[in-house]
Amino acid sequence: MARTAGSDAATTGPRIRAAAQRLFARHGYAAVSMRQIAAEVGVQAGALYNYTPDKQSLLFEMMRAHLEELLASWEAEDEGADPRAALRAFCHFHIRFHLARPEAVFIAYMELRNLEPGNFEVIEGLRKRYETALEDILRAGKAEGVFTLVDTKLAALAVIAMLTGVTTWYREEGRLSRERVAEIYWDMVRRAVGA
Amino acid sequence: MARTAGSDAATTGPRIRAAAQRLFARHGYAAVSMRQIAAEVGVQAGALYNYTPDKQSLLFEMMRAHLEELLASWEAEDEGADPRAALRAFCHFHIRFHLARPEAVFIAYMELRNLEPGNFEVIEGLRKRYETALEDILRAGKAEGVFTLVDTKLAALAVIAMLTGVTTWYREEGRLSRERVAEIYWDMVRRAVGA
Repeated sequence: MARTAGSDAATTGPRIRAAAQRLFARHGYAAVSMRQIAAEVGVQAGALYNYTPDKQSLLFEMMRAHLEELLASWEAEDEGADPRAALRAFCHFHIRFHLARPEAVFIAYMELRNLEPGNFEVIEGLRKRYETALEDILRAGKAEGVFTLVDTKLAALAVIAMLTGVTTWYREEGRLSRERVAEIYWDMVRRAVGA
Repeated sequence: MARTAGSDAATTGPRIRAAAQRLFARHGYAAVSMRQIAAEVGVQAGALYNYTPDKQSLLFEMMRAHLEELLASWEAEDEGADPRAALRAFCHFHIRFHLARPEAVFIAYMELRNLEPGNFEVIEGLRKRYETALEDILRAGKAEGVFTLVDTKLAALAVIAMLTGVTTWYREEGRLSRERVAEIYWDMVRRAVGA
């Protein structure tokens, strides 16, 4: 019995997070109740509270997990290569990572307004760390004379917005592979920063 | 009496649309009821139905009005100038138009999922017309040898995503004016398309 309960506990948490993500992406955080999330998972509403104190915590942990995975994945991939190679790696990484998680990307943008102030600060801090990773590449390239940039900060925001935009239109059955799209975007980013 | 009723009718429609936009942007379409919209306007819920058949129509008309205004404003501004001048005008126009309407921009992206299929098609058609206006500029520049582009379609989508991204971070009290931001973005767009 203990074994079964342990096994349940290990799988119920992730199932709750997955169900909440699906429902938030489909209907929006404010329109989804804890009761609906429980029904989607197939547990009693009361059982949900063994895994999360409330709906706000579910949203916050979902956004935090998304951004922490983004940061850890980029840090694992970043080879500290020369700025031009690092920027190309960043473009490919960003498109690949975001295309694989359309729901999390949508929620990360759309539900910022529903975070309580303390939670918002944590999420903003993580997002800024990611922007800073790109700024560091751009600044290094500028210092080495490889990139020509008017404003490093704005260039980082522009590049991230451009690359993230792929998630709004890319279709697997479309005319271009992910790899090909990333290469075409890299070509535009490269020229935008004068490399 | 008739005069007063006429005057009410003329102002109530716009007030309903403004209230609905405010509430949709704040809470999301699915979480907002017709009753809440009526309360925000200060009329009885029943009175709302003199102005709109239902909540879906409110959302659809709001998104359609936004995109039709976007198209009409760009067509009024587009001087059919040479591709380089036209692209610069487009960058300035797009940033100015979108920064002035953050709620409408947010809803236009976020609530696509809540449009009924027939309404979605109309909205997608309007959005595509706007993308095509930019593609036409890029194609003309490519034909004249002014722009160097791998893929005109992707370049249009990339430029629009990059420019729209300004609405997510721009603050009036920040270090840069709207005009200055538009000029910095134009510089990146110009280089991204090889001009």
